[in-house]
Formats: sequence, C-alpha cells, structure tokens
Amino acid sequence: MSADEQAGGQQGYFISFEGGDGAGKSTQSRLLGLWLEQVTGRSVVWTREPGGTELGLVLRQAVLHGDHVDPRTEALLYATDRAHHVASLVRPALERGDVVITDRYLDSSVAYQAGGRTLPVEEIEQLSLWAVEGLLPHATVLLDIDPLVGTRRLDTAPDRLERAGDEFHQRTRQAYLDRAAQDPDRWVVVDASGTVDDIHETIREAVAQRLGLALPEGV
Amino acid sequence: MSADEQAGGQQGYFISFEGGDGAGKSTQSRLLGLWLEQVTGRSVVWTREPGGTELGLVLRQAVLHGDHVDPRTEALLYATDRAHHVASLVRPALERGDVVITDRYLDSSVAYQAGGRTLPVEEIEQLSLWAVEGLLPHATVLLDIDPLVGTRRLDTAPDRLERAGDEFHQRTRQAYLDRAAQDPDRWVVVDASGTVDDIHETIREAVAQRLGLALPEGV
Repeated sequence: MSADEQAGGQQGYFISFEGGDGAGKSTQSRLLGLWLEQVTGRSVVWTREPGGTELGLVLRQAVLHGDHVDPRTEALLYATDRAHHVASLVRPALERGDVVITDRYLDSSVAYQAGGRTLPVEEIEQLSLWAVEGLLPHATVLLDIDPLVGTRRLDTAPDRLERAGDEFHQRTRQAYLDRAAQDPDRWVVVDASGTVDDIHETIREAVAQRLGLALPEGV
Repeated sequence: MSADEQAGGQQGYFISFEGGDGAGKSTQSRLLGLWLEQVTGRSVVWTREPGGTELGLVLRQAVLHGDHVDPRTEALLYATDRAHHVASLVRPALERGDVVITDRYLDSSVAYQAGGRTLPVEEIEQLSLWAVEGLLPHATVLLDIDPLVGTRRLDTAPDRLERAGDEFHQRTRQAYLDRAAQDPDRWVVVDASGTVDDIHETIREAVAQRLGLALPEGV
C-alpha cells in the first residue's frame, strides 16, 4: 500500500509514536517533527491520544482517572476520542498538507487490550478502524524498551494504567512487537535504550524511507 | 426467543420506551412501572439514555448541546453511554430481579440514524449490540405519533435534535415502524394520540403478554 492510500489520499504525512510510558515518545516525536519541518518545509502538528481535542480531554479524564468502567465502555471511550481526534484535527491537517505526529494511535488500544486480555483484540481493532474510517499512519514508530526500565524513567505520578502489573506491561510489549512484525512497511521498531541522538538518527532514516522522502546528501 | 434469553438469562424484566419527543414516554413509563410494581411486587428502576449514569451525563451534554461533532463520534458517544449504562446500572438491576424501564435504548440510535441517513444503520446496530453484549429488552414500547403533533406537545426548549427538520422526524418515525414490524415479539406499537388512560391500558396488556405475566382476573 502506498503512503497516499494509507492516509486516505490526503496530501500530508501522518506519523504515530507507540510504546510504553517512559520510552521517550515525547522527546523523539519532538525531534522528528523539527527535522521534518526543516527538510520538507511543511508545518508540523504534534498531538496525542487520548485527549488531543477538547472533547477528548473530557474522555481522557474519564478513562485514566475516573471510577472503574467496564472494558467495553473503556474501549468505546478511546474509540470516541479517536474518531473525534481524526475528524476534527488529523484529517483537516493532512488535507492542508501538514505533517501530523501523534503520541499514540489505534495500535495503543490494540496492544494494551492484548496486554489486559479482557476483550478480543480483533474487535478492538475493528472498532478503532470504524471510528477513523480506516485511516492508518504512513509510519508508526515503536520505541521498544523493557517495561521495568521505562517505568524507572518516569518522573510523574503514575496513572491507573501505569500502576498495572509488570506482566501486563510485558504482554503489551510483546503485542506491539507482534503487530509490528505483521506490517513492516508501516512500522519502525527502534531499541529505545540507546542515546537520544542515536535513536533520533535511526528514526529519521527509517521514517524518510517510509514517507518516500528524497533527501539531499548529508541531511 | 424467550424473555430470559433476550435479557441474557437475567432474573428481572427489561422494558424500553421509544418514539419521538412529545409522544408521552415519561408519563407512560411512569404509569407502567407503578403498575408492574403493584402486580409483580418487584422494585422498579426508571432510567434513560443518553445520560442514565454520571459518566453518561457528561456524554449526553457533549452530544446534545456541544459543538458539532462528526457522525462517527456522535454514534460512538451514544454507544459509550449505552455500554456504561448497561454494565453499571441495567445489568446489576436485572440480576437483582428488578424491573428496569428505560426511556430510549439502542432502537433510538438505529431509528434516528435512519432518519439522518449519514451512516449505514446496520453499522449503528452492530456497534450498539457490541456495546451491550447483545442485551435486548423483553418488551419495547413504541409510542407512535405524527411528529408535528409530538413537537407541539413539548413545553421545554428544543435541543439540537429536536430542532432538526420535519422530514428527518418523518423518516425516523418510519424507521421505528419498520423495525417494530420486523420483530413483533419484542415490539409493542401504540397509537400515542389517544388518552393517557387508554394508552396505559393498551401498553400494560401488551407488556404483560410479552413478559409472560399470569395476571389475576380484573387487574
């Protein structure tokens, strides 16, 4: 599938970052975006799920810090956030020709669901794909790290998902890796235990290749 | 399908009221519940969608009075409300053996979607059924009325859906009637233009039959 087909024939570039908390998604998405801005001359929109929109913030609050909700309600809250995020922010930006970089997208729902094993992952994927009318990123960067190392890097108070057990995080990591192996044209798997600069270099080369960017020598 | 299978083997009775605004759903659900309380000795829980739970109130606000959201986000907001409503309120009450009467359920989503014609109704139905794990009411009462008459009965300020055009309401009414015709074992279609007492009598007889209630003479 070409990049244009993946992003629904839009003119921009759509990139997602995935991985456990503490893997460095914020830092690396920032660096990648600044680099893409420089080499493509396009505007860059940084966003995230859940909570990339005003409505999304309400839903994010309900999922992460609210009272216990059952698995279907939780899955639907994420899907609602995603539908609104794509319709109101991601698609308009792609239509303008911008670069959109999102911290988490539908692969998060699938991988975390696989970690928790409460609902069939196929149903979660189908729900998310329906919510976004099949919009997939041109490139998805998985920052892969041992969950124990990732958790130690965090300096903020853990939320409900972050407090869940180690076994859950190991299963989630494996689900990400399995998913990436099934679609290597979209996924970029990066060992996130290296230095910030090395990781950035690996990411930008792989993403440039996924986007089909013709770069001048030495960039 | 027996009543027990429809409500997932639960011990209670699950009844939904459907129809346009101003058809008399509140009045008739109140009367039916009081009557069922009397003849069955069960507790009655009156509830509604959207907004039957605390989380649901937030979602209801987003759907009815918020800024424009796209059709998929709107459908997902209703489905999320419904999932939480069933998991946290309806199923526990049915497990206790209560009578649950809801003002609107999944047939509302399907009928209003058919009226608006923005998304395939089959997808809306599938989404709602997934959200509630297939839970259908033992009886669904459709209070059928000409939308023009129903609107004139309202004495509150109209919300976004109520302000939508007449053609929309006519299509929605037809969608309800078509749906009812397809599953007469569940649906009770009542002409809502009669007197409150006459309508109540019609409803209680039809619902008693759907629930398989053996009533003493003269009740």
